[in-house]
Amino acid sequence: MRQAIETLTIQTRRKGLIPITESVAAFVADSDIETGLLTLWCRHTSASLVVQENADPTVRTDIERYFDALVPEDHPYIHDYEGPDDMPAHLRTVLTQTQMSIPVSGGQMVLGTWQGLYLFEHRRHPHRRSVVMHLMGE
Amino acid sequence: MRQAIETLTIQTRRKGLIPITESVAAFVADSDIETGLLTLWCRHTSASLVVQENADPTVRTDIERYFDALVPEDHPYIHDYEGPDDMPAHLRTVLTQTQMSIPVSGGQMVLGTWQGLYLFEHRRHPHRRSVVMHLMGE
Amino acid sequence: MRQAIETLTIQTRRKGLIPITESVAAFVADSDIETGLLTLWCRHTSASLVVQENADPTVRTDIERYFDALVPEDHPYIHDYEGPDDMPAHLRTVLTQTQMSIPVSGGQMVLGTWQGLYLFEHRRHPHRRSVVMHLMGE
Repeated sequence: MRQAIETLTIQTRRKGLIPITESVAAFVADSDIETGLLTLWCRHTSASLVVQENADPTVRTDIERYFDALVPEDHPYIHDYEGPDDMPAHLRTVLTQTQMSIPVSGGQMVLGTWQGLYLFEHRRHPHRRSVVMHLMGE
Repeated sequence: MRQAIETLTIQTRRKGLIPITESVAAFVADSDIETGLLTLWCRHTSASLVVQENADPTVRTDIERYFDALVPEDHPYIHDYEGPDDMPAHLRTVLTQTQMSIPVSGGQMVLGTWQGLYLFEHRRHPHRRSVVMHLMGE
Repeated sequence: MRQAIETLTIQTRRKGLIPITESVAAFVADSDIETGLLTLWCRHTSASLVVQENADPTVRTDIERYFDALVPEDHPYIHDYEGPDDMPAHLRTVLTQTQMSIPVSGGQMVLGTWQGLYLFEHRRHPHRRSVVMHLMGE
Protein backbone atom coordinates (compact mmCIF):
# COMPACT_ATOMS: atom_id res chain seq x y z
CA MET A 1 0.00 0.00 0.00
CA ARG A 2 1.43 3.37 -1.03
CA GLN A 3 0.43 6.97 -0.48
CA ALA A 4 0.84 10.18 -2.46
CA ILE A 5 0.02 13.67 -1.22
CA GLU A 6 0.21 17.01 -2.99
CA THR A 7 -1.38 20.46 -2.80
CA LEU A 8 -3.26 21.93 -5.74
CA THR A 9 -3.22 25.74 -5.84
CA ILE A 10 -6.03 27.57 -7.61
CA GLN A 11 -6.04 31.31 -8.24
CA THR A 12 -9.63 32.53 -8.32
CA ARG A 13 -10.90 35.83 -9.75
CA ARG A 14 -14.49 36.10 -8.60
CA LYS A 15 -17.42 34.03 -7.32
CA GLY A 16 -18.12 30.90 -9.35
CA LEU A 17 -17.29 27.32 -10.22
CA ILE A 18 -13.76 26.56 -11.45
CA PRO A 19 -13.06 23.18 -13.12
CA ILE A 20 -10.29 21.14 -11.43
CA THR A 21 -10.88 17.65 -12.89
CA GLU A 22 -7.84 17.73 -15.19
CA SER A 23 -5.39 18.78 -12.46
CA VAL A 24 -6.72 16.10 -10.12
CA ALA A 25 -6.61 13.44 -12.88
CA ALA A 26 -2.97 14.35 -13.59
CA PHE A 27 -2.07 13.83 -9.93
CA VAL A 28 -3.75 10.39 -9.99
CA ALA A 29 -1.97 9.41 -13.24
CA ASP A 30 1.44 10.54 -11.89
CA SER A 31 1.00 8.53 -8.68
CA ASP A 32 1.09 5.23 -10.57
CA ILE A 33 -1.52 3.80 -8.18
CA GLU A 34 -3.95 1.41 -9.90
CA THR A 35 -6.59 0.87 -7.22
CA GLY A 36 -7.17 3.08 -4.23
CA LEU A 37 -8.94 6.03 -2.66
CA LEU A 38 -8.37 9.68 -3.58
CA THR A 39 -9.35 12.39 -1.11
CA LEU A 40 -9.62 16.13 -1.81
CA TRP A 41 -9.60 18.55 1.11
CA CYS A 42 -10.31 22.26 0.57
CA ARG A 43 -8.37 24.20 3.21
CA HIS A 44 -10.82 27.13 3.44
CA THR A 45 -14.13 28.12 5.01
CA SER A 46 -15.26 30.45 2.20
CA ALA A 47 -14.65 28.21 -0.84
CA SER A 48 -15.79 24.62 -1.30
CA LEU A 49 -15.92 21.56 -3.56
CA VAL A 50 -18.73 20.46 -5.86
CA VAL A 51 -19.30 17.61 -8.35
CA GLN A 52 -21.41 18.68 -11.27
CA GLU A 53 -22.25 18.29 -14.92
CA ASN A 54 -19.23 18.94 -17.13
CA ALA A 55 -21.19 19.35 -20.38
CA ASP A 56 -23.50 22.38 -20.60
CA PRO A 57 -21.90 25.41 -18.87
CA THR A 58 -25.33 26.96 -18.20
CA VAL A 59 -25.71 24.36 -15.43
CA ARG A 60 -22.90 26.16 -13.63
CA THR A 61 -24.54 29.56 -14.13
CA ASP A 62 -27.80 28.22 -12.69
CA ILE A 63 -25.94 26.79 -9.68
CA GLU A 64 -24.24 30.13 -9.04
CA ARG A 65 -27.54 32.02 -9.31
CA TYR A 66 -29.33 29.54 -7.08
CA PHE A 67 -26.76 29.91 -4.30
CA ASP A 68 -26.84 33.72 -4.61
CA ALA A 69 -30.58 33.53 -3.93
CA LEU A 70 -30.41 30.81 -1.25
CA VAL A 71 -27.77 32.66 0.76
CA PRO A 72 -28.32 36.37 0.07
CA GLU A 73 -25.62 38.97 0.70
CA ASP A 74 -28.10 41.68 1.73
CA HIS A 75 -29.04 40.18 5.08
CA PRO A 76 -28.23 41.51 8.59
CA TYR A 77 -25.55 38.96 9.54
CA ILE A 78 -23.77 39.60 12.87
CA HIS A 79 -20.40 38.69 11.36
CA ASP A 80 -20.12 41.46 8.74
CA TYR A 81 -16.76 43.20 9.18
CA GLU A 82 -15.07 41.14 6.45
CA GLY A 83 -17.55 42.38 3.84
CA PRO A 84 -21.12 41.47 2.78
CA ASP A 85 -19.92 38.39 0.86
CA ASP A 86 -18.00 36.82 3.78
CA MET A 87 -20.75 35.34 5.95
CA PRO A 88 -22.67 34.09 2.86
CA ALA A 89 -19.39 32.45 1.77
CA HIS A 90 -19.22 30.54 5.08
CA LEU A 91 -22.85 29.43 4.74
CA ARG A 92 -22.42 28.32 1.12
CA THR A 93 -19.40 26.29 2.22
CA VAL A 94 -21.45 24.55 4.94
CA LEU A 95 -24.20 23.75 2.39
CA THR A 96 -21.75 22.20 -0.10
CA GLN A 97 -18.56 20.14 0.49
CA THR A 98 -15.13 20.77 2.00
CA GLN A 99 -14.05 17.22 1.24
CA MET A 100 -14.56 14.58 -1.42
CA SER A 101 -13.23 10.99 -1.60
CA ILE A 102 -13.29 9.24 -4.97
CA PRO A 103 -12.39 5.56 -5.53
CA VAL A 104 -9.65 4.96 -8.10
CA SER A 105 -9.82 1.90 -10.37
CA GLY A 106 -7.68 1.07 -13.41
CA GLY A 107 -5.51 4.06 -12.54
CA GLN A 108 -8.41 6.52 -12.89
CA MET A 109 -11.09 8.12 -10.74
CA VAL A 110 -14.43 6.31 -11.14
CA LEU A 111 -16.25 9.49 -12.22
CA GLY A 112 -19.44 9.11 -14.22
CA THR A 113 -19.46 10.32 -17.84
CA TRP A 114 -21.01 13.69 -16.98
CA GLN A 115 -19.25 14.32 -13.69
CA GLY A 116 -16.72 17.12 -13.31
CA LEU A 117 -14.97 18.33 -10.15
CA TYR A 118 -15.15 22.04 -9.32
CA LEU A 119 -13.81 24.47 -6.77
CA PHE A 120 -16.67 26.77 -5.76
CA GLU A 121 -15.29 30.24 -4.97
CA HIS A 122 -17.74 32.13 -2.76
CA ARG A 123 -15.87 35.46 -2.35
CA ARG A 124 -16.15 38.40 -4.76
CA HIS A 125 -12.43 39.19 -4.85
CA PRO A 126 -9.51 37.03 -6.10
CA HIS A 127 -8.15 34.43 -3.69
CA ARG A 128 -5.38 31.87 -3.74
CA ARG A 129 -7.01 28.57 -2.75
CA SER A 130 -5.37 25.29 -1.86
CA VAL A 131 -6.83 21.81 -2.09
CA VAL A 132 -4.87 18.90 -0.59
CA MET A 133 -4.95 15.76 -2.78
CA HIS A 134 -4.25 12.49 -0.96
CA LEU A 135 -4.17 9.08 -2.64
CA MET A 136 -3.81 5.73 -0.92
CA GLY A 137 -3.70 2.40 -2.74
CA GLU A 138 -1.49 0.12 -4.77
CA MET B 1 -4.16 -4.33 3.53
CA ARG B 2 -6.70 -5.48 0.95
CA GLN B 3 -9.18 -3.76 -1.31
CA ALA B 4 -12.56 -4.70 -2.78
CA ILE B 5 -14.46 -2.71 -5.40
CA GLU B 6 -17.87 -3.35 -6.94
CA THR B 7 -20.67 -1.40 -8.61
CA LEU B 8 -24.18 -1.40 -7.19
CA THR B 9 -26.89 -0.83 -9.80
CA ILE B 10 -30.22 0.67 -8.73
CA GLN B 11 -33.22 0.93 -11.02
CA THR B 12 -35.29 3.94 -9.97
CA ARG B 13 -38.91 4.64 -10.89
CA ARG B 14 -39.54 8.21 -9.79
CA LYS B 15 -38.23 10.93 -7.45
CA GLY B 16 -37.58 9.76 -3.91
CA LEU B 17 -35.36 7.97 -1.41
CA ILE B 18 -34.46 4.34 -2.11
CA PRO B 19 -32.94 2.22 0.71
CA ILE B 20 -29.55 0.69 -0.17
CA THR B 21 -28.23 -0.30 3.30
CA GLU B 22 -28.77 -4.05 2.80
CA SER B 23 -26.96 -4.19 -0.55
CA VAL B 24 -24.02 -2.22 0.84
CA ALA B 25 -23.89 -4.37 4.00
CA ALA B 26 -23.82 -7.53 1.83
CA PHE B 27 -20.81 -6.18 -0.10
CA VAL B 28 -18.99 -5.46 3.20
CA ALA B 29 -19.81 -8.95 4.55
CA ASP B 30 -18.63 -10.65 1.33
CA SER B 31 -15.32 -8.78 1.38
CA ASP B 32 -14.18 -10.52 4.56
CA ILE B 33 -12.51 -7.29 5.71
CA GLU B 34 -12.72 -6.81 9.50
CA THR B 35 -11.51 -3.22 9.92
CA GLY B 36 -11.33 -0.63 7.19
CA LEU B 37 -12.97 2.21 5.29
CA LEU B 38 -15.91 1.83 2.92
CA THR B 39 -16.55 4.53 0.31
CA LEU B 40 -19.69 4.95 -1.79
CA TRP B 41 -19.51 7.08 -4.93
CA CYS B 42 -22.68 7.96 -6.87
CA ARG B 43 -21.72 8.32 -10.56
CA HIS B 44 -24.42 10.88 -11.42
CA THR B 45 -25.19 14.60 -11.17
CA SER B 46 -28.96 14.23 -10.82
CA ALA B 47 -29.13 11.57 -8.07
CA SER B 48 -27.29 11.58 -4.74
CA LEU B 49 -26.65 9.83 -1.43
CA VAL B 50 -28.27 10.51 1.93
CA VAL B 51 -28.04 8.99 5.44
CA GLN B 52 -31.34 9.14 7.25
CA GLU B 53 -33.66 7.58 9.78
CA ASN B 54 -34.55 4.02 8.84
CA ALA B 55 -37.55 3.71 11.19
CA ASP B 56 -40.55 5.92 10.39
CA PRO B 57 -41.04 6.18 6.57
CA THR B 58 -42.80 9.56 6.96
CA VAL B 59 -39.35 11.06 7.59
CA ARG B 60 -38.55 10.21 3.98
CA THR B 61 -41.77 11.79 2.73
CA ASP B 62 -40.98 14.98 4.65
CA ILE B 63 -37.45 15.03 3.18
CA GLU B 64 -38.82 14.64 -0.36
CA ARG B 65 -41.38 17.43 0.19
CA TYR B 66 -38.80 19.72 1.74
CA PHE B 67 -36.46 19.39 -1.24
CA ASP B 68 -39.34 19.92 -3.67
CA ALA B 69 -39.99 23.25 -1.95
CA LEU B 70 -36.33 24.24 -1.46
CA VAL B 71 -35.49 23.64 -5.13
CA PRO B 72 -38.71 24.30 -7.07
CA GLU B 73 -39.23 22.99 -10.60
CA ASP B 74 -41.27 26.01 -11.69
CA HIS B 75 -38.39 28.46 -11.85
CA PRO B 76 -36.84 30.12 -14.93
CA TYR B 77 -33.57 28.12 -15.02
CA ILE B 78 -31.32 28.78 -18.04
CA HIS B 79 -30.56 25.06 -18.41
CA ASP B 80 -34.07 23.79 -19.17
CA TYR B 81 -33.91 21.69 -22.35
CA GLU B 82 -33.66 18.40 -20.43
CA GLY B 83 -37.01 19.04 -18.72
CA PRO B 84 -38.19 21.08 -15.71
CA ASP B 85 -36.87 18.48 -13.24
CA ASP B 86 -33.30 18.40 -14.59
CA MET B 87 -31.78 21.60 -13.21
CA PRO B 88 -33.49 21.09 -9.80
CA ALA B 89 -31.97 17.58 -9.83
CA HIS B 90 -28.48 19.07 -10.23
CA LEU B 91 -29.09 21.55 -7.40
CA ARG B 92 -30.50 18.88 -5.07
CA THR B 93 -27.39 16.80 -5.76
CA VAL B 94 -25.11 19.72 -4.84
CA LEU B 95 -27.06 20.26 -1.60
CA THR B 96 -26.78 16.60 -0.56
CA GLN B 97 -23.93 14.07 -1.09
CA THR B 98 -22.31 12.35 -4.04
CA GLN B 99 -19.94 10.43 -1.76
CA MET B 100 -19.97 8.83 1.66
CA SER B 101 -17.14 7.06 3.55
CA ILE B 102 -18.08 4.83 6.47
CA PRO B 103 -15.59 3.15 8.83
CA VAL B 104 -15.92 -0.64 9.11
CA SER B 105 -15.28 -2.36 12.44
CA GLY B 106 -15.93 -5.99 13.41
CA GLY B 107 -16.77 -6.66 9.77
CA GLN B 108 -19.65 -4.16 9.76
CA MET B 109 -20.28 -0.50 8.97
CA VAL B 110 -20.35 1.58 12.17
CA LEU B 111 -23.86 2.93 11.43
CA GLY B 112 -25.91 4.22 14.35
CA THR B 113 -29.06 2.29 15.31
CA TRP B 114 -31.36 4.60 13.35
CA GLN B 115 -29.14 5.26 10.36
CA GLY B 116 -30.02 3.96 6.92
CA LEU B 117 -28.28 4.65 3.59
CA TYR B 118 -30.39 5.92 0.69
CA LEU B 119 -30.03 6.77 -2.95
CA PHE B 120 -31.93 10.01 -3.56
CA GLU B 121 -33.39 9.99 -7.08
CA HIS B 122 -34.11 13.55 -8.22
CA ARG B 123 -35.57 12.88 -11.70
CA ARG B 124 -39.24 12.17 -12.41
CA HIS B 125 -38.65 9.32 -14.86
CA PRO B 126 -36.99 5.91 -14.26
CA HIS B 127 -33.20 5.83 -14.35
CA ARG B 128 -30.55 3.15 -14.00
CA ARG B 129 -28.13 4.48 -11.34
CA SER B 130 -24.74 3.14 -10.35
CA VAL B 131 -22.94 3.56 -7.06
CA VAL B 132 -19.31 2.40 -6.80
CA MET B 133 -18.53 0.64 -3.49
CA HIS B 134 -14.86 0.59 -2.48
CA LEU B 135 -13.53 -1.04 0.68
CA MET B 136 -9.97 -0.88 1.96
CA GLY B 137 -8.78 -2.61 5.12
CA GLU B 138 -7.76 -5.93 6.56
CA MET C 1 -0.24 0.27 6.94
CA ARG C 2 -1.90 0.56 10.35
CA GLN C 3 -5.36 1.50 11.55
CA ALA C 4 -6.74 3.13 14.68
CA ILE C 5 -10.41 3.43 15.61
CA GLU C 6 -12.05 5.10 18.58
CA THR C 7 -15.38 6.68 19.50
CA LEU C 8 -15.63 10.29 20.63
CA THR C 9 -18.57 10.99 22.93
CA ILE C 10 -20.01 14.50 23.11
CA GLN C 11 -22.63 15.58 25.63
CA THR C 12 -24.73 18.35 24.07
CA ARG C 13 -27.00 20.77 25.94
CA ARG C 14 -28.97 22.54 23.24
CA LYS C 15 -28.98 23.36 19.52
CA GLY C 16 -25.69 24.71 18.23
CA LEU C 17 -22.11 24.13 17.08
CA ILE C 18 -19.73 22.39 19.49
CA PRO C 19 -15.96 22.47 18.78
CA ILE C 20 -14.35 19.02 18.50
CA THR C 21 -11.02 19.85 16.78
CA GLU C 22 -8.89 19.34 19.91
CA SER C 23 -10.34 15.92 20.73
CA VAL C 24 -9.87 14.76 17.16
CA ALA C 25 -6.30 16.15 17.02
CA ALA C 26 -5.46 14.26 20.24
CA PHE C 27 -6.68 10.99 18.69
CA VAL C 28 -4.48 11.62 15.62
CA ALA C 29 -1.44 12.46 17.79
CA ASP C 30 -1.93 9.34 19.96
CA SER C 31 -2.14 7.07 16.91
CA ASP C 32 1.47 7.75 15.95
CA ILE C 33 0.51 7.67 12.25
CA GLU C 34 2.51 10.15 10.15
CA THR C 35 0.68 10.04 6.81
CA GLY C 36 -2.81 8.74 6.27
CA LEU C 37 -6.53 9.40 6.10
CA LEU C 38 -8.74 10.27 9.07
CA THR C 39 -12.49 9.70 8.82
CA LEU C 40 -15.16 11.02 11.20
CA TRP C 41 -18.58 9.40 11.19
CA CYS C 42 -21.46 10.89 13.19
CA ARG C 43 -23.75 8.03 14.27
CA HIS C 44 -26.98 10.08 14.32
CA THR C 45 -29.65 11.48 12.02
CA SER C 46 -30.40 14.61 14.05
CA ALA C 47 -26.85 15.91 14.63
CA SER C 48 -24.14 16.42 12.02
CA LEU C 49 -20.59 17.56 11.26
CA VAL C 50 -19.44 20.93 9.96
CA VAL C 51 -16.08 22.56 9.15
CA GLN C 52 -16.10 26.25 9.88
CA GLU C 53 -14.15 29.30 10.93
CA ASN C 54 -12.54 28.84 14.34
CA ALA C 55 -11.82 32.53 14.93
CA ASP C 56 -14.83 34.82 15.35
CA PRO C 57 -17.61 33.01 17.31
CA THR C 58 -20.29 35.21 15.70
CA VAL C 59 -19.81 33.11 12.54
CA ARG C 60 -21.26 30.21 14.51
CA THR C 61 -24.21 32.28 15.70
CA ASP C 62 -24.95 33.33 12.12
CA ILE C 63 -24.78 29.69 10.98
CA GLU C 64 -27.21 28.64 13.71
CA ARG C 65 -29.63 31.44 12.84
CA TYR C 66 -29.42 30.73 9.13
CA PHE C 67 -30.32 27.07 9.63
CA ASP C 68 -33.18 27.99 11.96
CA ALA C 69 -34.61 30.10 9.13
CA LEU C 70 -33.81 27.66 6.30
CA VAL C 71 -35.46 24.72 8.09
CA PRO C 72 -38.21 26.22 10.26
CA GLU C 73 -39.71 24.35 13.20
CA ASP C 74 -43.19 25.82 12.70
CA HIS C 75 -44.06 23.88 9.57
CA PRO C 76 -46.68 21.11 9.13
CA TYR C 77 -44.29 18.15 8.87
CA ILE C 78 -45.95 14.71 8.73
CA HIS C 79 -43.34 13.24 11.09
CA ASP C 80 -44.07 15.34 14.19
CA TYR C 81 -44.58 12.99 17.15
CA GLU C 82 -40.99 13.36 18.37
CA GLY C 83 -41.43 17.12 18.79
CA PRO C 84 -41.31 20.19 16.51
CA ASP C 85 -37.48 20.16 16.42
CA ASP C 86 -37.14 16.53 15.28
CA MET C 87 -38.00 16.69 11.57
CA PRO C 88 -36.02 19.96 11.14
CA ALA C 89 -33.08 18.14 12.80
CA HIS C 90 -33.25 15.39 10.16
CA LEU C 91 -33.37 17.96 7.35
CA ARG C 92 -30.47 20.00 8.76
CA THR C 93 -28.46 16.77 8.95
CA VAL C 94 -29.17 16.02 5.27
CA LEU C 95 -28.10 19.58 4.30
CA THR C 96 -24.79 19.33 6.19
CA GLN C 97 -22.44 16.34 6.73
CA THR C 98 -22.60 13.01 8.53
CA GLN C 99 -19.05 12.17 7.51
CA MET C 100 -15.75 13.92 6.94
CA SER C 101 -12.39 12.51 5.76
CA ILE C 102 -9.27 14.59 6.36
CA PRO C 103 -5.79 13.72 5.05
CA VAL C 104 -3.08 13.49 7.72
CA SER C 105 0.46 14.66 6.94
CA GLY C 106 3.39 15.14 9.30
CA GLY C 107 1.28 13.53 12.03
CA GLN C 108 -1.41 16.23 11.79
CA MET C 109 -4.68 16.88 9.97
CA VAL C 110 -4.12 19.18 6.97
CA LEU C 111 -6.67 21.74 8.22
CA GLY C 112 -6.37 25.31 6.94
CA THR C 113 -5.42 28.03 9.45
CA TRP C 114 -9.03 29.09 10.02
CA GLN C 115 -10.69 25.68 9.88
CA GLY C 116 -12.26 24.13 12.95
CA LEU C 117 -14.30 20.92 13.23
CA TYR C 118 -17.73 21.09 14.88
CA LEU C 119 -20.52 18.81 15.91
CA PHE C 120 -23.80 20.49 14.94
CA GLU C 121 -26.50 19.58 17.48
CA HIS C 122 -29.95 20.08 15.93
CA ARG C 123 -32.18 19.06 18.87
CA ARG C 124 -33.33 21.42 21.63
CA HIS C 125 -32.71 19.02 24.52
CA PRO C 126 -29.40 17.49 25.73
CA HIS C 127 -28.16 14.42 23.85
CA ARG C 128 -25.22 12.07 24.15
CA ARG C 129 -23.65 11.97 20.67
CA SER C 130 -20.99 9.65 19.33
CA VAL C 131 -18.60 10.24 16.48
CA VAL C 132 -16.44 7.32 15.26
CA MET C 133 -12.85 8.35 14.44
CA HIS C 134 -10.98 6.04 12.06
CA LEU C 135 -7.40 6.57 10.94
CA MET C 136 -5.53 4.54 8.33
CA GLY C 137 -1.91 5.17 7.34
CA GLU C 138 1.67 4.65 8.43
